[in-house]
Amino acid sequence: MRILLVNPNTSADMTERMVATASAVLDPGVELVGITATRGMPYIASRAEAAVAGSLTLEMIAENQQGADAIVIAAYGDPGLIAARELFDVPVTGMAEAAMLTACMLGQTFSVVTFSRTLTAWYEDAVRLAGLDARCAGIRVPDASFQSVATVQHELEGELVKLIDEVVARDKADVVILGGAPLTGLAERIADRVPVPLVDPVSAAVGQAQLLARLKVRPARAGRFARPGAKPAVGLSPALGAWIEHRD
Amino acid sequence: MRILLVNPNTSADMTERMVATASAVLDPGVELVGITATRGMPYIASRAEAAVAGSLTLEMIAENQQGADAIVIAAYGDPGLIAARELFDVPVTGMAEAAMLTACMLGQTFSVVTFSRTLTAWYEDAVRLAGLDARCAGIRVPDASFQSVATVQHELEGELVKLIDEVVARDKADVVILGGAPLTGLAERIADRVPVPLVDPVSAAVGQAQLLARLKVRPARAGRFARPGAKPAVGLSPALGAWIEHRD
Amino acid sequence: MRILLVNPNTSADMTERMVATASAVLDPGVELVGITATRGMPYIASRAEAAVAGSLTLEMIAENQQGADAIVIAAYGDPGLIAARELFDVPVTGMAEAAMLTACMLGQTFSVVTFSRTLTAWYEDAVRLAGLDARCAGIRVPDASFQSVATVQHELEGELVKLIDEVVARDKADVVILGGAPLTGLAERIADRVPVPLVDPVSAAVGQAQLLARLKVRPARAGRFARPGAKPAVGLSPALGAWIEHRD
Amino acid sequence: MRILLVNPNTSADMTERMVATASAVLDPGVELVGITATRGMPYIASRAEAAVAGSLTLEMIAENQQGADAIVIAAYGDPGLIAARELFDVPVTGMAEAAMLTACMLGQTFSVVTFSRTLTAWYEDAVRLAGLDARCAGIRVPDASFQSVATVQHELEGELVKLIDEVVARDKADVVILGGAPLTGLAERIADRVPVPLVDPVSAAVGQAQLLARLKVRPARAGRFARPGAKPAVGLSPALGAWIEHRD
Amino acid sequence: MRILLVNPNTSADMTERMVATASAVLDPGVELVGITATRGMPYIASRAEAAVAGSLTLEMIAENQQGADAIVIAAYGDPGLIAARELFDVPVTGMAEAAMLTACMLGQTFSVVTFSRTLTAWYEDAVRLAGLDARCAGIRVPDASFQSVATVQHELEGELVKLIDEVVARDKADVVILGGAPLTGLAERIADRVPVPLVDPVSAAVGQAQLLARLKVRPARAGRFARPGAKPAVGLSPALGAWIEHRD
Amino acid sequence: MRILLVNPNTSADMTERMVATASAVLDPGVELVGITATRGMPYIASRAEAAVAGSLTLEMIAENQQGADAIVIAAYGDPGLIAARELFDVPVTGMAEAAMLTACMLGQTFSVVTFSRTLTAWYEDAVRLAGLDARCAGIRVPDASFQSVATVQHELEGELVKLIDEVVARDKADVVILGGAPLTGLAERIADRVPVPLVDPVSAAVGQAQLLARLKVRPARAGRFARPGAKPAVGLSPALGAWIEHRD
Repeated sequence: MRILLVNPNTSADMTERMVATASAVLDPGVELVGITATRGMPYIASRAEAAVAGSLTLEMIAENQQGADAIVIAAYGDPGLIAARELFDVPVTGMAEAAMLTACMLGQTFSVVTFSRTLTAWYEDAVRLAGLDARCAGIRVPDASFQSVATVQHELEGELVKLIDEVVARDKADVVILGGAPLTGLAERIADRVPVPLVDPVSAAVGQAQLLARLKVRPARAGRFARPGAKPAVGLSPALGAWIEHRD
Repeated sequence: MRILLVNPNTSADMTERMVATASAVLDPGVELVGITATRGMPYIASRAEAAVAGSLTLEMIAENQQGADAIVIAAYGDPGLIAARELFDVPVTGMAEAAMLTACMLGQTFSVVTFSRTLTAWYEDAVRLAGLDARCAGIRVPDASFQSVATVQHELEGELVKLIDEVVARDKADVVILGGAPLTGLAERIADRVPVPLVDPVSAAVGQAQLLARLKVRPARAGRFARPGAKPAVGLSPALGAWIEHRD
Repeated sequence: MRILLVNPNTSADMTERMVATASAVLDPGVELVGITATRGMPYIASRAEAAVAGSLTLEMIAENQQGADAIVIAAYGDPGLIAARELFDVPVTGMAEAAMLTACMLGQTFSVVTFSRTLTAWYEDAVRLAGLDARCAGIRVPDASFQSVATVQHELEGELVKLIDEVVARDKADVVILGGAPLTGLAERIADRVPVPLVDPVSAAVGQAQLLARLKVRPARAGRFARPGAKPAVGLSPALGAWIEHRD
Repeated sequence: MRILLVNPNTSADMTERMVATASAVLDPGVELVGITATRGMPYIASRAEAAVAGSLTLEMIAENQQGADAIVIAAYGDPGLIAARELFDVPVTGMAEAAMLTACMLGQTFSVVTFSRTLTAWYEDAVRLAGLDARCAGIRVPDASFQSVATVQHELEGELVKLIDEVVARDKADVVILGGAPLTGLAERIADRVPVPLVDPVSAAVGQAQLLARLKVRPARAGRFARPGAKPAVGLSPALGAWIEHRD
Repeated sequence: MRILLVNPNTSADMTERMVATASAVLDPGVELVGITATRGMPYIASRAEAAVAGSLTLEMIAENQQGADAIVIAAYGDPGLIAARELFDVPVTGMAEAAMLTACMLGQTFSVVTFSRTLTAWYEDAVRLAGLDARCAGIRVPDASFQSVATVQHELEGELVKLIDEVVARDKADVVILGGAPLTGLAERIADRVPVPLVDPVSAAVGQAQLLARLKVRPARAGRFARPGAKPAVGLSPALGAWIEHRD
Repeated sequence: MRILLVNPNTSADMTERMVATASAVLDPGVELVGITATRGMPYIASRAEAAVAGSLTLEMIAENQQGADAIVIAAYGDPGLIAARELFDVPVTGMAEAAMLTACMLGQTFSVVTFSRTLTAWYEDAVRLAGLDARCAGIRVPDASFQSVATVQHELEGELVKLIDEVVARDKADVVILGGAPLTGLAERIADRVPVPLVDPVSAAVGQAQLLARLKVRPARAGRFARPGAKPAVGLSPALGAWIEHRD
């Protein structure tokens, strides 16, 4: 089995870290291949950036889907998730959606704890898109600032542990999701210092992708997620244009 | 006052028709300028296509916003609406959102009547995004098929009038929105043959854009809709890349 | 075009101030006529008072509707709005509804900031009636007291500016509505001192009324908003009784 | 104990029938006094009429509240209910609200079955006002027409029994409310011919009023339902004006 | 008339106290019989305990239903309520549900005030089960600890009065429910010291049971609450097994 | 790794079939152990039966949890799920919840298709408990009857395939869940004959249990799902009583 992890950010080291962390949930014999965007931004933080990334994600999948049994969109916020599910025939998971659905099996309410206030509007959209408003106890950010997304999980480690305690006490969160690719790997490190289960989104998304591939679900041939009919397309990336025009 | 109507489809004749129809709601002295996508698809119908169009819409606005007092995204479904509102400083309206909010002042429930089943999933998303689920009585499509989007409003005119009657009787819609740019202008033609008020989306969107410009609201300097900070961007269209990098 | 502004309070000076402020959104050639209640209370603040005012509003419209292209109910809380829309054939807008729907095009969430705690229950009802609970970030009131509704917007100006800052930071409001006729005109004065767009309700309501008239929507002939059949009525105001009995 | 039943319609015979039917739930020693509107309409059916009736209801209570331990607003749709609860200090129940809350103890979903399509918009408002949308399986009306509200329950008896069967089978209603004062007494007559429990609204409303009086709850002295402060009032009915001005 | 009060806890003195308090709402001639669990726990506080109690409640009703006109499940949280309503043919009320529905006639929002944090998750479930989320202003607990459930209402009396004040001011509760059998009787004692109406759950549940019996509603013969068909059952309590197997 | 599959029905052959089917999603080296209830009913179909089964499930887990890395409650409807999650320290999944959450990654709406009308009320409760009402397109049952739960999936195979087509066309379901243990294995057999992805609940529940164990989430030490404190318990099954009393 082969799972494709698509990072719509241009940071290759983040792709590597996500692949490394998520490998812990893989069965032996499952290959996890990470690819990194060559256009776009080093780290998506706003919804305008996510709109651009949604389109890039489709380009990246169109170019690399060959041979994949499942695809993971590796940016918390899931740019292009619904579009990709509609357009392509393999199962697709996203970090935000997979983390939230996984959290729903560990408690009744989850909170998302992340590191930057500019991310919260995008993360709220992911909650609403999943229809999970009633289960989300909040999206919270520490007050402290940080130097770089590459090291933020170490810089703010103490603040985040403290914030999780608060989120449990004040917002009554049963589970905490550590939102945002830059926090990948932090869950394992602090799990014993916080009072509720933690969810690492990329591990959840890769684990769910593996499960969907195992369940051997067939792609939709009717309804909202059947592949759209062929349509002329001008000026798009070659692979995406070809796929939209059914020249595959 | 100058209003920019952005059509993210590649059909220039549809742009013209929308500008012509919407001019009826403009005050003398307001200029309405239509622009048409040069990349993309002739007519967006799926959510994958809408994801691509969302990105194109941002490119088009970045290139043409200079001197605009308000912007209208002229595709029912509003690709890139929230992203554009976040990224740019002028008021932005969308056909779906403006039609639905306008309909809310004419009754308690509205139905959207359109011409193709593949559009409905996208139109449902627009309802949900606006938080208007409780006011939407349904999205309905006639069973009949048609030859071309250019002539669909004439081909299906009789079917659509009949469907509106049904929607009023069965779904208890108080108002009907004629969804989709290809139906532009139909409302005026059939208004006297149907038992409830009709909303023409592009007229609503242009009218609301004009009103927002008149209200002289200031752009947000804080919160979800404040312009995101400068960020490096690689490989995007020149104007959009420059705006994201704050080189304006 | 002629728009009728109906103030169900007995304060004629407030009617004048509203007409003056709202004129800024009118096209040249549109006439805005304000009328003031001759029965009732100087300023409606509770829901019991609003129930009485709902009935008075219908009387006032019945008496003055002749020649009006659209009607504005000029009390935030919109007494009699749904009833008036059902009973009469011209478009009717209300200050609360129009302000909230307009705010929905400027951000995802709005807060209502007003000056007296007794108003909040009524304002909450307006949110619920519009089905906009999911978009309302709260209804907030400063702690300070004031001398008179005639001068409250000057007395509390500093407090209100401060409260708007708090509402943006704490409740994450994207837009703020200044609720209550006594705050008419304040938005323009403080717009540059607050970090998010402000909505002035009477300007929104008059602007929306003008747009509805421009859209030339036909009145409903079926469903919830078709005019009720003739019915005997005893002891009501002459014009309202005549209209209910279809003696028009 | 003395319970006041306020009929905001002008039909005295309907008042009598309601008093007669509801007496079956009263304890010995409880007096039920019915009063009938002297202004207004013989039978309220639209929301415009209900807005007028809301104001009349307050007048009637203001005039007759002396000595009452609880008040019942005896029109399904509950005109003026929230206003009356705010304004007066005795417990107030309404036929729609009481019937729905009672139904909630007999099953998970209820349907309202009534006799005229024009009533349904008003009855839907009552569901929404109570926040019981999730428990309402629908509001249904037979297709047949009838001669007079005085005899409608006999004219349509067969149709209504059949409709209840349908409502149980198709809408999965666990309980059926017979909505509208003209159906008072029908529940008892057909209870053995239908497969689910029936609720007679006036019996529920009088029974709940009696229970609230028994529970000896104190009136609110703070919050949404504390009596509003004194306020000048011009041109209202003497008793209502006096109560609003605190001249009691 | 005979009402059966079923206490699924093993504390007989609490049963007695509840019977004594609730007697105040009974008509002369109504007999209220309390029974106490012989298996289980002295005081249910968690949802695991409530799951066990739900099964015990069914056993207790199966054994004692003979001759009862209505049944009250006398633990706030209502273990087994829906199951009992489905299985048995007499009306069944629960303390949480009855208190909340009664509170809905006294204001728009209610808060539940109780004495121990471990109870809140269970009480939240009761709100959700009743579909009353939109009317619940919160579930609140004082910070202070206590010695014993038998005396907690005296130990925390001052704290609870203070908390009710806060709940009214901060959460805008119109009504307060004193949740949990150990607070039975407190409402009457402190009613004059708090600014909003209080609901005593066991009085509400017994009062509502009496009303349902008075309304003479027939049991459902179709739908969700019709008695399930006979089914073999192994190893259950004799009366419950017999009832499930229709050996009655 | 060792996963415990707990069947709260008394049918051992159904346990075997579920273990056989679910094994397809297991990694090599994971052991799946099925246990069958010795008390209770052969097949739970009503909510009264589910209430009894909830208590039995806790007994079965208490007795068999030793050495388990995750637990699956193997009855669609998930009796005792929340209680078990609160009481025990290993991850617990349920067939209904796991199937619905898995379906949420394959489309926006799912329908549950099952074989007997008496099951639907219970299945609706599972939707509501998960907070997934907005994503459930309906719960549907074929009109045909059947002989035995052991063979129902063969008896009704044709009817179910046809019903799935209807559910896709009429209810717009993107995914279909085959609800109820007796349908275990059917998904694989008919997957190529239906137009949307199918979910087999026991495979989903076992797959999710395996994933939760892989994610090595720690049990909650605070909040709603922390293990309740020790409490005296009388007359319960030995293992459950001991666990509740913390004699483990």
